[in-house]
Amino acid sequence: MSSDIRRPSGRAFDQSREVRITRDYTRHAEGSVLVEFGDTKVICTASVEAGVPRWLRGKRQGWVTAEYGMLPRATHTRSGREAARGKQGGRTLEIQRLIGRSLRAAVNLKKLGEFTITVDCDVIQADGGTRTASITGGCVALVDAIRHLQREKLISSDPFKQLISSISVGLYKGLPVVDLDYPEDSSADTDMNVVLSESGEMIEVQGTAESGSFKREQLNAMLDLADKAGAELFAHQREALGFCK
Amino acid sequence: MSSDIRRPSGRAFDQSREVRITRDYTRHAEGSVLVEFGDTKVICTASVEAGVPRWLRGKRQGWVTAEYGMLPRATHTRSGREAARGKQGGRTLEIQRLIGRSLRAAVNLKKLGEFTITVDCDVIQADGGTRTASITGGCVALVDAIRHLQREKLISSDPFKQLISSISVGLYKGLPVVDLDYPEDSSADTDMNVVLSESGEMIEVQGTAESGSFKREQLNAMLDLADKAGAELFAHQREALGFCK
Amino acid sequence: MSSDIRRPSGRAFDQSREVRITRDYTRHAEGSVLVEFGDTKVICTASVEAGVPRWLRGKRQGWVTAEYGMLPRATHTRSGREAARGKQGGRTLEIQRLIGRSLRAAVNLKKLGEFTITVDCDVIQADGGTRTASITGGCVALVDAIRHLQREKLISSDPFKQLISSISVGLYKGLPVVDLDYPEDSSADTDMNVVLSESGEMIEVQGTAESGSFKREQLNAMLDLADKAGAELFAHQREALGFCK
Amino acid sequence: MSSDIRRPSGRAFDQSREVRITRDYTRHAEGSVLVEFGDTKVICTASVEAGVPRWLRGKRQGWVTAEYGMLPRATHTRSGREAARGKQGGRTLEIQRLIGRSLRAAVNLKKLGEFTITVDCDVIQADGGTRTASITGGCVALVDAIRHLQREKLISSDPFKQLISSISVGLYKGLPVVDLDYPEDSSADTDMNVVLSESGEMIEVQGTAESGSFKREQLNAMLDLADKAGAELFAHQREALGFCK
Amino acid sequence: MSSDIRRPSGRAFDQSREVRITRDYTRHAEGSVLVEFGDTKVICTASVEAGVPRWLRGKRQGWVTAEYGMLPRATHTRSGREAARGKQGGRTLEIQRLIGRSLRAAVNLKKLGEFTITVDCDVIQADGGTRTASITGGCVALVDAIRHLQREKLISSDPFKQLISSISVGLYKGLPVVDLDYPEDSSADTDMNVVLSESGEMIEVQGTAESGSFKREQLNAMLDLADKAGAELFAHQREALGFCK
Amino acid sequence: MSSDIRRPSGRAFDQSREVRITRDYTRHAEGSVLVEFGDTKVICTASVEAGVPRWLRGKRQGWVTAEYGMLPRATHTRSGREAARGKQGGRTLEIQRLIGRSLRAAVNLKKLGEFTITVDCDVIQADGGTRTASITGGCVALVDAIRHLQREKLISSDPFKQLISSISVGLYKGLPVVDLDYPEDSSADTDMNVVLSESGEMIEVQGTAESGSFKREQLNAMLDLADKAGAELFAHQREALGFCK
Repeated sequence: MSSDIRRPSGRAFDQSREVRITRDYTRHAEGSVLVEFGDTKVICTASVEAGVPRWLRGKRQGWVTAEYGMLPRATHTRSGREAARGKQGGRTLEIQRLIGRSLRAAVNLKKLGEFTITVDCDVIQADGGTRTASITGGCVALVDAIRHLQREKLISSDPFKQLISSISVGLYKGLPVVDLDYPEDSSADTDMNVVLSESGEMIEVQGTAESGSFKREQLNAMLDLADKAGAELFAHQREALGFCK
Repeated sequence: MSSDIRRPSGRAFDQSREVRITRDYTRHAEGSVLVEFGDTKVICTASVEAGVPRWLRGKRQGWVTAEYGMLPRATHTRSGREAARGKQGGRTLEIQRLIGRSLRAAVNLKKLGEFTITVDCDVIQADGGTRTASITGGCVALVDAIRHLQREKLISSDPFKQLISSISVGLYKGLPVVDLDYPEDSSADTDMNVVLSESGEMIEVQGTAESGSFKREQLNAMLDLADKAGAELFAHQREALGFCK
Repeated sequence: MSSDIRRPSGRAFDQSREVRITRDYTRHAEGSVLVEFGDTKVICTASVEAGVPRWLRGKRQGWVTAEYGMLPRATHTRSGREAARGKQGGRTLEIQRLIGRSLRAAVNLKKLGEFTITVDCDVIQADGGTRTASITGGCVALVDAIRHLQREKLISSDPFKQLISSISVGLYKGLPVVDLDYPEDSSADTDMNVVLSESGEMIEVQGTAESGSFKREQLNAMLDLADKAGAELFAHQREALGFCK
Repeated sequence: MSSDIRRPSGRAFDQSREVRITRDYTRHAEGSVLVEFGDTKVICTASVEAGVPRWLRGKRQGWVTAEYGMLPRATHTRSGREAARGKQGGRTLEIQRLIGRSLRAAVNLKKLGEFTITVDCDVIQADGGTRTASITGGCVALVDAIRHLQREKLISSDPFKQLISSISVGLYKGLPVVDLDYPEDSSADTDMNVVLSESGEMIEVQGTAESGSFKREQLNAMLDLADKAGAELFAHQREALGFCK
Repeated sequence: MSSDIRRPSGRAFDQSREVRITRDYTRHAEGSVLVEFGDTKVICTASVEAGVPRWLRGKRQGWVTAEYGMLPRATHTRSGREAARGKQGGRTLEIQRLIGRSLRAAVNLKKLGEFTITVDCDVIQADGGTRTASITGGCVALVDAIRHLQREKLISSDPFKQLISSISVGLYKGLPVVDLDYPEDSSADTDMNVVLSESGEMIEVQGTAESGSFKREQLNAMLDLADKAGAELFAHQREALGFCK
Repeated sequence: MSSDIRRPSGRAFDQSREVRITRDYTRHAEGSVLVEFGDTKVICTASVEAGVPRWLRGKRQGWVTAEYGMLPRATHTRSGREAARGKQGGRTLEIQRLIGRSLRAAVNLKKLGEFTITVDCDVIQADGGTRTASITGGCVALVDAIRHLQREKLISSDPFKQLISSISVGLYKGLPVVDLDYPEDSSADTDMNVVLSESGEMIEVQGTAESGSFKREQLNAMLDLADKAGAELFAHQREALGFCK
């Protein structure tokens, strides 16, 4: 049945876009990564600051948070600069909350000590999947920031728990596909973002039927695609970080 | 294994809280519902206004949107009034975007004509599950607003497609439970909100591992609980609306 | 002369609407009251917090303040949510300042100790007189919050001074009337809100000639109506609070 | 009884401060007045603009509105600039709403045509009574703006109805006094602002018991003082405007 | 060549407008000056507050900063009140940053001790050159505030370094002119603001070609005019301050 | 005298950093340039939109404007995201106003027709000179956007007037230097940004004595350095754009 449906990109249904993870992309941040999922390009920087937010003071733990932004012309048409409009939109807040929650799963906050690591994900070119690229690249920047803390002997134990990556899956003309680009994303029936741990378990699942609805077996088929793509992403992260296998 | 784990409320693992749906709760709105999931109480009003947002003008369709708020002392400790702080927080925006997307699945926007229905969900007492109660009650208010449009002969065809309801499920001490109240919600390992159509398909799934992660079989076990609870919610909605079976 | 003028509601000129004061309306607040002046319904919660605003620190006294809001569809047509617009309007600020000043007259701030009591007045249905209902109901919630502080032995002496209530009076087609509902309020020549102490003295008087002006004898006639209505309100408050006569 | 109470300024109880009204104070505005009540100095400019606010369009009438501000160092200690803080405070909004309502009583809006007159009242030095000085001086600026419209033949009939002035009265150590300056205002038991028409009727009364309460006979005694002071203010306005007696 | 070009005001090309500097213009501020450059009138107040901004704490120095505003009708047409719009515009921020930087050149911040002096420049009437008048008048207010600190023995050494003044120059129909008023400013080819020290050196130069561009010899010709005008301004400042020559 | 003063970078006093201009850096914008002045890296995109701002409607001309931003970790320490703080700071507004004015000198707005070109300059790595790099790179992006309009036959005549570039000069330990990097910029006595036209004339000059002041001959020495560096920048721009010499 699926034989006569083609993805706009010509990719196979289970084929992710090319992934590139470039570390040390900018000079100042403790972790700085350019992550590319095809034409989606995001600069992820991890910044270490001493101290924690007010509501965590004295609790002998650290904090990991994220902020997300898009350059105004990362997209096909220019969107107004959020700084000029005076507030971050709902979509931005929703995404940065997702990134922050996901990256906290990579870290043992107790072992982080009273430091805050802020991961800024700034999209310089968007073609679908900016939040999944941000989580995947942001995790690499986060590891670099943790390594910086250890190298500088600011912490003694290792707060790194596990790699976290994220991929989108969806139903395109009724069939499950992985890593939707913008043309697919804007016409997909269902769009789902999955955040995974290296052990293959789920950290977060957010699936939305843009039109219609989806059944349990479709959900599971999409999650199968996400599992496979996640394994590839972890390999990219490990290679970028020089982790021995 | 689960025999020695008890929910704080004493409820069975697959037992939802008592649901009450009171229509015509306030006088002015085209649809006005007080929805109660146990001690969680939300006023949902659906307001009809002629016209659509700027970006939909001339497209011969209507729009359904939602706004969400909490009275400052709906919760255990008073939280600052968002109007006084000068902006809606990220959690608020995330929730109202979810409610809006979910309720649009109940409506054929083309048949709605150039009307906007705004569903305001204001929590007067919170005990977990405010967003799921908002969607479930909001859908009833939305149906009343649509009926108003038809009764007033402002539209000729029926834009109502299907009832939508929503329930939370989660992993509490490792076991799947349904309809988490605040004590469970604040200590659950995983929290998932599921939005369902009457046919039992999913409109939206948002699951978060607050600590750790969750496996595929746990996900499916939680969704089984959601399916069962959803069927009960649809019965409550139908009874409140006086739908013949 | 007045024989041929009828109030829209059919009430006598000196007849207030039915008043209902329901204590313990919601669960979490130290004081929680639903107050109804006819179809005007306001939830008043009094929240106790340790500490005082910065400008009172070290002055060995407490503080009582109020915030006011309307659910978007409390009114005939939906008004924009202030949280979404990013600021409280002038009318809102004016009303909540009035409520706060009025309620402070009920309390000996020195005896309150370094606690702040915030009275939130949220209108769920509006039909004129929302500020007078807020003051009248808010005072009952305030008393409950003070009793909570005493019961919990957080303060030793009693900061409660006197009950405060409030009623609107006005000139409708030239004749003095009490407790204006929305149809009267929107067409009254003069509208006056009076805040009273139990001894029958005035705490605050705010009278506005919406069109034309008013004479001294009209003012005094309106105040006579307020005195009579105030006595009834104090009886309602005392009964709700279970005060012995 | 009052013989041994002296006002801080040494004025008699019924003695207002010296009033000066300087027209054409700045060059650009259609009406520009410097009004001085003793050491309180306010620049009142009336600006004419074609058109009316959106909600009045097509109603064949004009609009009169007011804005109020204080230079940061008009007061004893510097207060933050509202433009820098990003919003007008509640006191500012309350005052400018009062000024606007009061000045609209001077004008027949129907005869004004579709023009908006904005009266800006900017306090350059504050010593109590800034809102009463603003109304009194603002009315003179408003008359000049109306005369400008007539002189330029932009309107044919005369929208000016009557002069409006305003004075504060209060209870100082229990005794009624008129035109409170800052030392009196900050220690008065009761503070009342009265807005009057030339015929001696009241447009607005706002009385607040800062501590304690006030009785009916005290209210009437204060209003007697306001009547007498109002007559003086109207004489000042008429003289400044060159009105024949 | 210049013989047939006349300035709109009839002034000679090197002729500044009449300058008036009135000290002690308002009562409360430690320094208060009304400065007039022809029809441009600015109230400059210097306010002393104990303490320094957070980022200077513990650095054993003081701070001088400036804020700038315009009354809404200081200009030909009314411009919206920045406090009402909820933010200061870019022009305002640019000007107040310039004033602050310029005035800091008048003071030895180390000798000022941990005090902050805020110079508020509020334009009550604008006719070109508001920023240059603000700097020139603001410096006199600043000196008065420093003298206050010394007189009150709050500081022991003298932080005053030098007088600072400012003048605009420009190219009007191709020819260099000094102290542009509004008609010149709005049609000038080039507009330049120069901030000078008493020794004739430059503190700040900001030149903009509104249309076209300017050559080096034109720049130097304009700066020659600024030098001459600056000498006159310093004489005005010294005379106002009663400095012996 | 200068023989024993060395720049931190080891560069000669008249030596600019390496300049790289990469066109077509991102995909969506009509003009997209990565400009590098040494370690300062700015993405400049030029976006074409039909229509002009309200105040230009009907004037038969176009508009060119600029916005400026820094990624939070473009700098040594993370600075708060302006979108999250809810407003653009004074420095940002000052810079983007400068960029906009400068770039308008490159264009004949009458020939642009009713189009708006917005040049977004987003700093991804900062090491001094971000505003001069933004102008220099932004001009190239602007030319590409103009060529797009011509290629798409949206305009018939050529609105491009001239190339514009910008360079910083300053006094470092008393000696004139060109193209200051961050270490120089933060310790320079005087800092000046010069915007030049290809003919060698000045479009804008902004010089500030951070400490002390500067003399006329120093100003002219700095401008000599700017002239020389400007010639190099124009060569870089022309080469990047493929202009024949």
